[in-house]
Parts: sequence; structure tokens; C-alpha cells
Amino acid sequence: MKIVEMLLVEAPHQPGNMAKVLTIIGDMGITVEGLNAIRRLYKDTVWELTIEYDDTFDLQILVDEINLLPETEVVGKSDRVFNRHKGGKIKTQSSIEINSLEILRDVYTPGVARVCQAIQESPEKIKDYTNLHNTVAIVTNGTAILGLGDIGPEAGLPVMEGKSAIFSELVGISGIPVLLKERDPLRIIETVEAISPSFGAILLEDIKAPECFQIEEELIARLDIPVFHDDQHGTAIVALAALLTATRRLGICIKEKRFGQIGLGAAGMGICNLLLEYGVKEVFGTDINDEAKKKLRGDGGTPVSLEELMQKADIVVATTGVKGLIKPEMIRQGQIIMALTNPDPEIEPEVAIEHGAVFATDGKTVNNMLAFPGLFRGTLDAGVHKITHQMRIVVAETLSSLAKEHALVPSALNKEAHQAVAEAVYKSALEKH
Amino acid sequence: MKIVEMLLVEAPHQPGNMAKVLTIIGDMGITVEGLNAIRRLYKDTVWELTIEYDDTFDLQILVDEINLLPETEVVGKSDRVFNRHKGGKIKTQSSIEINSLEILRDVYTPGVARVCQAIQESPEKIKDYTNLHNTVAIVTNGTAILGLGDIGPEAGLPVMEGKSAIFSELVGISGIPVLLKERDPLRIIETVEAISPSFGAILLEDIKAPECFQIEEELIARLDIPVFHDDQHGTAIVALAALLTATRRLGICIKEKRFGQIGLGAAGMGICNLLLEYGVKEVFGTDINDEAKKKLRGDGGTPVSLEELMQKADIVVATTGVKGLIKPEMIRQGQIIMALTNPDPEIEPEVAIEHGAVFATDGKTVNNMLAFPGLFRGTLDAGVHKITHQMRIVVAETLSSLAKEHALVPSALNKEAHQAVAEAVYKSALEKH
Repeated sequence: MKIVEMLLVEAPHQPGNMAKVLTIIGDMGITVEGLNAIRRLYKDTVWELTIEYDDTFDLQILVDEINLLPETEVVGKSDRVFNRHKGGKIKTQSSIEINSLEILRDVYTPGVARVCQAIQESPEKIKDYTNLHNTVAIVTNGTAILGLGDIGPEAGLPVMEGKSAIFSELVGISGIPVLLKERDPLRIIETVEAISPSFGAILLEDIKAPECFQIEEELIARLDIPVFHDDQHGTAIVALAALLTATRRLGICIKEKRFGQIGLGAAGMGICNLLLEYGVKEVFGTDINDEAKKKLRGDGGTPVSLEELMQKADIVVATTGVKGLIKPEMIRQGQIIMALTNPDPEIEPEVAIEHGAVFATDGKTVNNMLAFPGLFRGTLDAGVHKITHQMRIVVAETLSSLAKEHALVPSALNKEAHQAVAEAVYKSALEKH
Repeated sequence: MKIVEMLLVEAPHQPGNMAKVLTIIGDMGITVEGLNAIRRLYKDTVWELTIEYDDTFDLQILVDEINLLPETEVVGKSDRVFNRHKGGKIKTQSSIEINSLEILRDVYTPGVARVCQAIQESPEKIKDYTNLHNTVAIVTNGTAILGLGDIGPEAGLPVMEGKSAIFSELVGISGIPVLLKERDPLRIIETVEAISPSFGAILLEDIKAPECFQIEEELIARLDIPVFHDDQHGTAIVALAALLTATRRLGICIKEKRFGQIGLGAAGMGICNLLLEYGVKEVFGTDINDEAKKKLRGDGGTPVSLEELMQKADIVVATTGVKGLIKPEMIRQGQIIMALTNPDPEIEPEVAIEHGAVFATDGKTVNNMLAFPGLFRGTLDAGVHKITHQMRIVVAETLSSLAKEHALVPSALNKEAHQAVAEAVYKSALEKH
């Protein structure tokens, strides 16, 4: 894993001194990400030097080496990533400044009683006079955190806060991390149901397969607010967006093609379902788990072996977590290959192209944060109770239509893209009513 | 109930015109709270006129009367209280601006994975790298909302958002409203337990007695984070603070006196328990409910009849919700009477004084928002697992010590008072370790 660290280096303010420091760093095969003079002393300068290195490297070796330079010393170290997480990444804020007795009496007691009664008499007024319909629970039990696996809900909190920070920054939604001390699907369902009046929608996050399927399905059935499992559908939407862009540029009609999905976990199953709904000719899928293959058949796909899939499918997506699973010789002439496992894909795109693929990419561009913020914004604004396949497809089509040249999807930080997704979802949601 | 409404009145810009409008309002017995010119037109001015009137009054009668004035018209109406609740009173915000790919990669993927792993390896790091230990769940099932009673969790949300806004504004805590679709105490306990990893502490709110006693007790036993039922302990703390101030000024030692509590609901039972812990000579209590009296005996108090209580107690607190319950002739010479039911007390303070009380007050000053913000701030900062009687008494003593002349407790909006409470709790909490 990569570590981004900032070193504070004090060195004489003379030509060539930092060159010596950077040479030492370069000789150790470490890249420099930034260099800023932050303090000028009597004859020395303190530099803030940002480096990125692999966590297998012992940083002390580098520090010792730099300290050997004449009059040069590492006077401080700090980890930029940890700095940015210090104190957490979100907070709840009052939308109104409470600085007078008048305001206090209006927003709290006695004024609030009339607002409560108004909602009691006309429940739909809760949308006007509370933040409820702008609030999304980000629910996890910590069993499948971001490629790290089953590390527990507490250790997953930084990810949930990240989702919440993204919600707030990109589309102004209040995301509330909900960490569940539960592994039994039925108890998770009951707990989320019990707290569901607190939220306008539910984002399920990093819950492992196969439990995630039952949990999402049952919550959709029980609740009248939107429920969305990002690991299944977020990845699927962005993968479809990337496929739509790639096939459009190649002049291929995706609906006439056979699709193959390698790996039928949460993401893989979500991709199969979305492509079935989109209307590709046939969906093949493979997994080492027989239960997963059985579920695929139930959902309308065809379970096959890896070898058979590579022979039959025109478009192949892989989400297995297994580096190098697709051997170069398995590639068929003219295939489209998306090997999404991060950071090491099932096959390197260049190798796939070399062996006959007409297009290949890895998972770096398929970032599920492209889908969920705009999708929830549009859904909440439209006030609908469910997120449909049609709405998911609309998100994929919108993202694909906004991809700049040389890119498959827009940048994840492009606020206009998130806004466009929200508007497209809003329109699609209202059409279905 | 009082309604605060703003009328927009357009009238010719000539001397005496608004006088006529105000005269009409005054003649109807309605008070004016504010008058501002907000727009000057060619020959007219638009005034924003704030009035407060009883909800039994038909505002249209006033509007019609104003419209009869020559060239004068009510061009708009708006309810200030509802305006202040529009869109809700709280939101979740990112603590960090996500405006570059570097920041996104640090706070979300791939950077966040290292923070997750650090917490997995050293769970105490969750305090450094998330907002968890600054987050308090504000939990209700809506069965005893702010004097309105059992109006359901959704209609109670404006109150929970109010508590959250107060947390944010006064002590920087992130309060999260949690509305429970549950009435069974055991299921409430299980639900709160299941979601408890999401929070640094639990504030139970507006849950009716007697269920609230079991729920609080069991959650305190099961969880290793602070659990506090505001209706029981918040009111008790502020009532004790007011009593400490009153008795100090009267030169009375509260510990040598007999105490009587009329009404043994959540607040009344909380007051009895705090005064027992504080060490008054004896605690009498009365209620129409026999179960409540039985619970009082179990807690160390003595159940009696209302008449007996009024005869035996030197200090009487009433929290019954019953206007005029204490008859003037029941008052004993030299008694201290706090009749806390809002807006109409069990006995008007002037009447109590007239009939021999040495001191009397009603509930307007006993605002429980004086206690909970500083108490939670101090508790979270100290990192303790329970809120003790001792910590509650420290809050009451601190509040009493900060009361200005002619007041029993400080102003609820006095940030220094909340800070002082937080510091006193922090010190007291650490002493107990």
C-alpha cells in the first residue's frame, strides 16, 4: 500500500542543498510529490517535502541518510492522509444561528410545538419543516469494507464518513453513518426498519455477499423510502457507463452482444442484473462459489466455466479480486475487456490488447462515487419510494454522455456531472409515476 | 397556543398611516412585536409587521379590517416560527473541502484504507480519526413529545433537530436524530444497542414513563458509552440548580430539609433520585399512579398523599401537568414551592407567596437545555463510560453558582455557562477514575 508522508527538512539556504536531498530520495526509488519552503530561518530554510512510498519501505533508512548530509536534518514527519482524517471528516451543524432568545423560542420551545402539531396533522409537512428528506443513512456492518474485507463496523467508519463528506460536498445531502453491531441478516433488516423513520433514504455499504442480497431485497420490500446497495449497483452503473462509452466509440451496439461477468459477488451480480435489464443478448457468469452461480441463474443469467465464458462472451467484465486471473491466451479476437480489480487487474489492459482485444481497461476509472450522489439527489428531489432499474440505466447513460474525449466517464469531482445525473434521475423518476 | 405571524402591509408614505394600522391591531387586543419598513415604492411603503396572537383568534378578521383603510393593504403573510423551521434546522457537513483529486484520494479511496486499518489494529484511534466521539444520538419513539404527548416519532423530529441545533451551536457536538418505529421497551433497547457503535453517547428524549426507566437502565447496563434520559435527569439537574440558588439566598441548608415531589413521571422521578443522592433529609412523593409510588419506594423515597406531602415537606416541586393542582390553602408557612408545569403551573407563584410560601417560582426558568449540552461536552471530552449522580450534581452546583442576581440559573444562551458546566463535568468525571 502507498503511504503519502510529509517530511520537514531543515537545510542551509545555499544552491544545490535540496538537490542533494532529492537525489538521495530518487536513488532509493521513491517519488517526490511536492516541495515547498515553509519557513526561512537565519541561514537555514525549512522545506516541506511530500513523498509517496510503499509501506514495505522503512522510512527511517531514508531519514538517516538525509541526516548524514552536512547541516541538513529531518526535523519533522507527518502523514498527510492521517492529517486529513484528524477529528473526522463530517459534523452536524445547525442551519440557523441561535443567538437570541427570540430565535431560541421559535426553533425550540415553545415555538417548535406548533411545527410538531402541524406534522402530526399533515405528515407530508415533515418534508417542508425538517431535514428528513435530505438525510440518507449510510449503513454498514463492516463485513466487506473497501477491499479490506471483514474489519468490523468501527474500522469502516472512515469510509462511511468519506461517503458522507462526498454527499455533502457534491450534492448537499446529509449522510449519517450507521454502524451496526450485527451479522445476522434478519436482525440487520429489523434494526434498519426500526430506525428508518429517521431518514429519507438508505444507502447500504460494504456488506458482504450473499447476505447483502437478502438485506437489500427485504428492506426494499418493507420500507417506503429508497434503499440502494452501492457495492452492487454503484459499481454496476459506472461499469455500464464505461461500456456504453467504449462501445459507442467502437461503433458496436451493446444490445447485440453477449456479455460475460467473471466474479459474482456484490458488484458482479449487480453488473449482471443491470445488463440483463439493459437488454444485452445474453449474460454469462462465472464464480468459484456454486451458490453465486445458482443465484445468477435465478436472476436470468447463464452460469458457465471461466473458459467457456471467455470463448462465448463479446464483452467481459471481471471483479474477482484475483490478480492475473485472465490469462493472455484466453483473449478472443475483438473482445472488450474490463478487468476492474484494484490495484492489480485480472489482466493488464495492454496485454489484453496485445492478445487481440479491441478495447481493454482496468478499474481506475470505474469509481462508484460517480453514481450515488446524483442518483440520491434526484431520487430525494422527486420524492419517489424506490430506485428502479430504469433510473440506474439513466444514470449510466448520463455519465457516458458526459465523458470527455479519451475518458470513459466524467471526473468524479465534476459537480456539473453530478447535477446532470440528479436532473436526469429526477425526470426519469417522475415519468414512472 | 401563541402564533407569531409577519404581515406585509403596503400603505401610503404619509404621517399617521401606520398609526391607524397599529390602532386596529391594538383594539383587537393583539400585541405588536416588530415593525420594519422593508421596501419603498413610488408613493407607498411596504412594512413588515410582526404580531403575536392566540391561535383561537381568526387572523382574517384583522386582515379584512386593515384592508378597509384607504389605500392600505395586507400584501403578504408569513409565520415566523414556520419560516425558521423551513428545510429543517440541521445538516451534515464535510469538515474538509474536497476540491482536488489529491484530497479525494486522501480522504476517500485509496487513502482511507490505511486509516481503516489503523483503527482495526488500534481501536482507540477511532477517537483521533473520526467524528465518532463527538457524535450523540438523540433517540426518541415519540411517545412523550414536549408536553404534546404521544404524537409519534416523525412529528417529534422538529424537537430532535432543535436539540441537535443546540448541541452544535453551544458546544460543537454532532447530534443525530434517531426516530424509532418501536413501542416495546425490549425492542427499543435492542435497536439502540445494535446501532450504538455509531455514536459516542446516547441522549434519550421524550420517551414516556414508565417505559423510559427500563430503557435507560438497561441501556446503561449494556453499553459502554454514556446514556442519559433528558426528561428524567435534565429537568432534575436544572430544578436542583434553581433550588440551590433559592435556598442559598434564603440562608436555608437544603440537606436539613424535607423534600416533596408532586408527580412521579419521568421528570418527577428524576428529581426525587437526584435529591436523594444530594442528601436531603427525606423525600416524599405523590402521584395518581400506584406503580409510580411503588417505584419511588424502591428508589428510597416515601410515597404519601398530596395532602400529607404538603403538610410534611419544606420544599415542594410539582411536575404534574395539572394546572392549579395545589390549592392556596394547602401552602404551609415558610414553604418553598416550585410549580414547574408549563405554561400553567400547579399554583401561581404570587398566590403561593400570598398564602405563606417563603419562596415560589414556576417552570419558565427551569429549561433543561441548561444541562445537557455542557454535560455531554464534558463527558465526551473525559472519555468516560457513564454519567454518574456526582456529575449531575456538579452540573447543578455549577449552574447555581453562575446565576446572576434576580435569576435562579444562568441564561440558556450563555455559552460561557455551558463551557463552565463542561469543564466542571470533565474534572468530576476524571476524579471518579
